[in-house]
Amino acid sequence: MPKVTVHRKAHFNAAHRLYRKDWSDEKNTAVFGKCSNPNFHGHNYDLEVSVTGEIDKETGFVMDLSILRKLIKEEVEEAFDHKNLNVEVAEFKEVNPTAENISVVIYDKLRTKINRNLDLSIKLYETPRNFVTYSGN
Amino acid sequence: MPKVTVHRKAHFNAAHRLYRKDWSDEKNTAVFGKCSNPNFHGHNYDLEVSVTGEIDKETGFVMDLSILRKLIKEEVEEAFDHKNLNVEVAEFKEVNPTAENISVVIYDKLRTKINRNLDLSIKLYETPRNFVTYSGN
Amino acid sequence: MPKVTVHRKAHFNAAHRLYRKDWSDEKNTAVFGKCSNPNFHGHNYDLEVSVTGEIDKETGFVMDLSILRKLIKEEVEEAFDHKNLNVEVAEFKEVNPTAENISVVIYDKLRTKINRNLDLSIKLYETPRNFVTYSGN
Amino acid sequence: MPKVTVHRKAHFNAAHRLYRKDWSDEKNTAVFGKCSNPNFHGHNYDLEVSVTGEIDKETGFVMDLSILRKLIKEEVEEAFDHKNLNVEVAEFKEVNPTAENISVVIYDKLRTKINRNLDLSIKLYETPRNFVTYSGN
Amino acid sequence: MPKVTVHRKAHFNAAHRLYRKDWSDEKNTAVFGKCSNPNFHGHNYDLEVSVTGEIDKETGFVMDLSILRKLIKEEVEEAFDHKNLNVEVAEFKEVNPTAENISVVIYDKLRTKINRNLDLSIKLYETPRNFVTYSGN
Amino acid sequence: MPKVTVHRKAHFNAAHRLYRKDWSDEKNTAVFGKCSNPNFHGHNYDLEVSVTGEIDKETGFVMDLSILRKLIKEEVEEAFDHKNLNVEVAEFKEVNPTAENISVVIYDKLRTKINRNLDLSIKLYETPRNFVTYSGN
Repeated sequence: MPKVTVHRKAHFNAAHRLYRKDWSDEKNTAVFGKCSNPNFHGHNYDLEVSVTGEIDKETGFVMDLSILRKLIKEEVEEAFDHKNLNVEVAEFKEVNPTAENISVVIYDKLRTKINRNLDLSIKLYETPRNFVTYSGN
Repeated sequence: MPKVTVHRKAHFNAAHRLYRKDWSDEKNTAVFGKCSNPNFHGHNYDLEVSVTGEIDKETGFVMDLSILRKLIKEEVEEAFDHKNLNVEVAEFKEVNPTAENISVVIYDKLRTKINRNLDLSIKLYETPRNFVTYSGN
Repeated sequence: MPKVTVHRKAHFNAAHRLYRKDWSDEKNTAVFGKCSNPNFHGHNYDLEVSVTGEIDKETGFVMDLSILRKLIKEEVEEAFDHKNLNVEVAEFKEVNPTAENISVVIYDKLRTKINRNLDLSIKLYETPRNFVTYSGN
Repeated sequence: MPKVTVHRKAHFNAAHRLYRKDWSDEKNTAVFGKCSNPNFHGHNYDLEVSVTGEIDKETGFVMDLSILRKLIKEEVEEAFDHKNLNVEVAEFKEVNPTAENISVVIYDKLRTKINRNLDLSIKLYETPRNFVTYSGN
Repeated sequence: MPKVTVHRKAHFNAAHRLYRKDWSDEKNTAVFGKCSNPNFHGHNYDLEVSVTGEIDKETGFVMDLSILRKLIKEEVEEAFDHKNLNVEVAEFKEVNPTAENISVVIYDKLRTKINRNLDLSIKLYETPRNFVTYSGN
Repeated sequence: MPKVTVHRKAHFNAAHRLYRKDWSDEKNTAVFGKCSNPNFHGHNYDLEVSVTGEIDKETGFVMDLSILRKLIKEEVEEAFDHKNLNVEVAEFKEVNPTAENISVVIYDKLRTKINRNLDLSIKLYETPRNFVTYSGN
């Protein structure tokens, strides 16, 4: 059967700052600039999750998108939406919440829930002009 | 010469339902939910066709986009626009018109018309949040 | 208090055809063209609901958008989404479902549910290039 | 001379929470829900500033947009971008930073800097689906 | 019958420069900056034409959008697309092609072709961040 | 460390024409149509630059996007914005400024400035419907 990629968009709003505890404030500011503001700033994160696999002969689906939508809601939206990523999300207690690192965290959370014969890819927009993609390698 | 991908967008509006004749109404509803409504629903499908090949030294084109635009118009827009995919489009008489299957049908129609030394890829948006990509393998 | 307009977007997917029962098929086709296809076609309708009024001194809201979102969901999305407007939606049994008429039906449904000291306006996209606005007069 | 409106877009990223100091935490949560999270959340705010007036016969401009862009940069972007609105922006020390109130603050800041024979209007997107407009009355 | 506004989008690509023949090069540069480059620059202009009137009881249309689309094609797209506005478009021989002036020219051209009981409005994007609106007064 | 792609958007407005000096006017028109207009036309070019590499363990960045933004500004925006590509940009003196060729020129300019252990890719929109991608091979 043909191999197709299905994509589903979602979004969440969150506060964050770029910051390393083991660096001085001066070094944090030198490297991360205004993104290191100790009072936080925030974004409307736009997320695009892509799943690649063969079309199921019976249904014509690669994966039921309503299942994918529910997965994204449970694993990402409920965990991150209207949260402070640094303060309230366990994965970023020791990990700097750059767009790169957030995309890896999202990939890892979804990877465990999606059948291994399907490939997974994450696109995450921090702003309409800055975004990242990660496919797990 | 450098290998570049050229992309052209197009769109069509159509009605469809997700449905298998060989399944009971109950099973169609269980698997396809409200997408299986026997009275049909519809979408503004947004299509993106991508063609990859070497830049022609003479013209600076990979492929003349006005030829690609005309091809898409003849093969896709005139065949699908303002149509009921299940009822009026031959390719979906026995094939469930999921976004996945529509992308494969579009790929197959265009593949026969585009020079084999050019690679072809299809992106099809069923809604702004749900879309698929297919590159023929 | 300052008078501000708050806007909320929503969407629904539906099938329809432009058609008058009291006209011949020839006249329907002459006036409505391919939009009159008896097998229906469809759209991703994008809806924008705007409510104007004074900012509430206590909350800083004109109207709680989560209430507006719920209203749109109940009155519009649940009534129209994944439906055939001509066949399944009572308001279009005798009314041609042009974008103009759909916007008036949505306005009338929401108008009865929103406090009269707030002004209401509807924007409805039938396609990204064709849309209508209606403010109730 | 004809009266035309010129529009300029800008944006800023900020953290905020909806919150009244004089209310209990319970009441803040009851009214503002997850938007009241004490650890803050954030948005990519998109701003559109509109200025209406007669076309200047000499220049063909209503207002030089490079002057308007500079004004927006100084008065809005430098004041709000990568800031925590509740903690770091004086105007929201006693004012709840709802989209409605932010649009009024932006209007008031720009109004003092733009010639009185020009009308001013503000559109502020908190998310792509929630936005407000304010024209000073 | 309810009064509704119908909107139709179109676009054209053109070269232009901001420039007054009766000014020195120095003054042109001082006022118009890099927009005055004597070798021209260009834009993808996005146009939105809005027509307001009562819904026709028979058709459910304010105005048949296929007629409006044809009008825009003949009066605007064929006149401006892939043209140099300063050099090749008669209306800008003596008029500086600012977005403001282009919107007035488009309004005046369409106004003569659209029934006087319908109101007309023009929105013209010079870039996604700079645009103008004109309603004929 | 995981390999992630970071993307940054930018844009420039420019005039151009498609044209070969060594062809007759007739042949230029036959091949390039209205894009060959000797008075030029123009576009709002939207550019997306993508850089792929391992996440830096220290910063959580693949590449500091403020450095990438500055590079794009110096190498692309300052060189092309508000310019006539055929007349004023050295790279197109002997090269036809098709979107394909522009993307290769941008790639080549940025490639020399970005660390070789990072992969580079260019996406260039000539219009919202026509665009190209190039990854250097």
